[in-house]
Amino acid sequence: MRAVEPIRWTSDGVVLLDQRRLPGEEIHHTYTDYRDVAKAIKDMEIRGAPAIGVAAAMGIALGVQQSKAKDLRELRADFANICDDFACTRPTAVDLFWAIERFKTRFDDLARSSDAGDGSVRKIQHALVDEAQKVHQERRDADERIGRFGAELMPKSGRVMTQCNAGALATGGIGTALGVIRTAVENGAGFEVLVPETRPYLQGARLTAWELHHDGIPLTLITDNMVGHFLKTGKVGAVVVGADRIARNGDTANKIGTYGIAVLAREHNVPFYVAAPISTLDLKLASGDEIPIEERSQEEVTHLAGKRISPDVRAAHPAFDVTPSRLIAAIITERGVARAPYEDSLTKLARAHS
Amino acid sequence: MRAVEPIRWTSDGVVLLDQRRLPGEEIHHTYTDYRDVAKAIKDMEIRGAPAIGVAAAMGIALGVQQSKAKDLRELRADFANICDDFACTRPTAVDLFWAIERFKTRFDDLARSSDAGDGSVRKIQHALVDEAQKVHQERRDADERIGRFGAELMPKSGRVMTQCNAGALATGGIGTALGVIRTAVENGAGFEVLVPETRPYLQGARLTAWELHHDGIPLTLITDNMVGHFLKTGKVGAVVVGADRIARNGDTANKIGTYGIAVLAREHNVPFYVAAPISTLDLKLASGDEIPIEERSQEEVTHLAGKRISPDVRAAHPAFDVTPSRLIAAIITERGVARAPYEDSLTKLARAHS
Repeated sequence: MRAVEPIRWTSDGVVLLDQRRLPGEEIHHTYTDYRDVAKAIKDMEIRGAPAIGVAAAMGIALGVQQSKAKDLRELRADFANICDDFACTRPTAVDLFWAIERFKTRFDDLARSSDAGDGSVRKIQHALVDEAQKVHQERRDADERIGRFGAELMPKSGRVMTQCNAGALATGGIGTALGVIRTAVENGAGFEVLVPETRPYLQGARLTAWELHHDGIPLTLITDNMVGHFLKTGKVGAVVVGADRIARNGDTANKIGTYGIAVLAREHNVPFYVAAPISTLDLKLASGDEIPIEERSQEEVTHLAGKRISPDVRAAHPAFDVTPSRLIAAIITERGVARAPYEDSLTKLARAHS
Repeated sequence: MRAVEPIRWTSDGVVLLDQRRLPGEEIHHTYTDYRDVAKAIKDMEIRGAPAIGVAAAMGIALGVQQSKAKDLRELRADFANICDDFACTRPTAVDLFWAIERFKTRFDDLARSSDAGDGSVRKIQHALVDEAQKVHQERRDADERIGRFGAELMPKSGRVMTQCNAGALATGGIGTALGVIRTAVENGAGFEVLVPETRPYLQGARLTAWELHHDGIPLTLITDNMVGHFLKTGKVGAVVVGADRIARNGDTANKIGTYGIAVLAREHNVPFYVAAPISTLDLKLASGDEIPIEERSQEEVTHLAGKRISPDVRAAHPAFDVTPSRLIAAIITERGVARAPYEDSLTKLARAHS
């Protein structure tokens, strides 16, 4: 079983799967101009914070590779422009800026150890292409480790519930929550996945259902308001979700609806797991109360597929909610599994060498 | 404030509001042939069990009024055909059969006290038209009483949450849950209503939002997975929903999603109320475990407005769920407010004279 690859570095260019067209069409674009990669990020052809980080890394490397610079001074100017172009694409995506910073540091290191001529231009071009592939490989490795740690917590049969899309499409690896599910299934677990559709953007129906179907993992799609009914009657052995940001005490911001699922899981004694890379931890925040909740467009609620589904009324659209850590059985990272008290366990994992 | 009227008896015929076209279009059809009323019920132009009962009563009266019968024998034959036509429209709607039985009893009573000539034909025709209007008036009165009892339980400000559509569109009166909300607002309460969209059929977004907007009651539309977030952060003072069937112990079947809302309301100490007429009680059932859950078409989950929103995967579509009575603060009926222990309080109300 090979998870879908939403991003690939090839000798022809950067290949991206257009996620906006899923599940209706599976279209891959091969980009040879870095500006097109930046535009693909901006236009949400690729989404999911970790995947955006990988795409930006590849885009920067592509831009540097394209550069016609004759010397280090010219390359440095081109590099700065390329980084600026990516910084403008999705201003709130943490992984985007992490990738840019990493490339800036790497560029400076390489420049310091080079002479100023065209030999060093080619050397830096090659090194940054390698760096992009290293970013991607690290992302893949982290997902694999999260998958292995998490798989041991999954039931052998029955059902597992997830939420939104914390899959290959969102990370460029095997996914975080879906990486756990994939690894458990590869190890022989025979459960079915319950996939809430995740209104308003339908990441569950459009992306998670598509990924699991692609991999041949059994699933049943449900509407978000069926979660309680299935936790009560549907033999669910575990819930596993991703995370957008995790505070020092373990409180976790994730896609809207996650909090409700966590409360309902607790009501039925179903363990609720968060699967996320260490980079998702924000140890500066003492608790989830400090996590800002992005309010998105009302039209995404009042319209569906371009069609108005309600009268012209006010709608709310908080994109995320916060699940208090008391409802979380464990947080699965690439460095191990954290359990309560989370302030201790998460701080320890964050400080550990990977 | 006058609630919308989905059904009206007029001198021109039976006027129905086409609920399938809401909220995009507000179209009323005037039917002068009873067969068209039967077809309107079958085609879900009108929905909601109590409203179907009222529409069937008016349709039967319309058919009897149309009859060219010259004597009682001919009228009786026509009447039997009319009743059969309505019995085929929505085979699971309890109120439909209740209306047919009531008209059969009334017809027999009238026939017994009449001679067999054409004078008695006209007498019965008039009496059954009166009976249909009486059914509608009783429905209106019950909603008004539910509204008055329930209004006292509503907060004066903040927010009230509902689910699906338990409104005028579903009953032909002011509605049950929405009747409580309307009455509280008429009595001066200043709350806003949180309306979950209620996937897959979107009764919240399409019907409840439209009704409240029509009446000028402030509302905010949310997706179903925002319920937990708003119960945690949104100053919700009460939840009030309708019911499809209530067992002897108070366990309540209602639109899918209701159970999850009830658990989340309890988590945040928000009282959860059920508003329903006595006819919804099914005292033969000891508990909610005995209530069958209708499984509806998968396409309603995988498609929206005729458009596929997921890949070709399995979907589940239980149309209802069961909320255990321990999560219900009170059941509001037209004969008063029942509280735990429900077996006592509901049995007492069911036996009381209205």
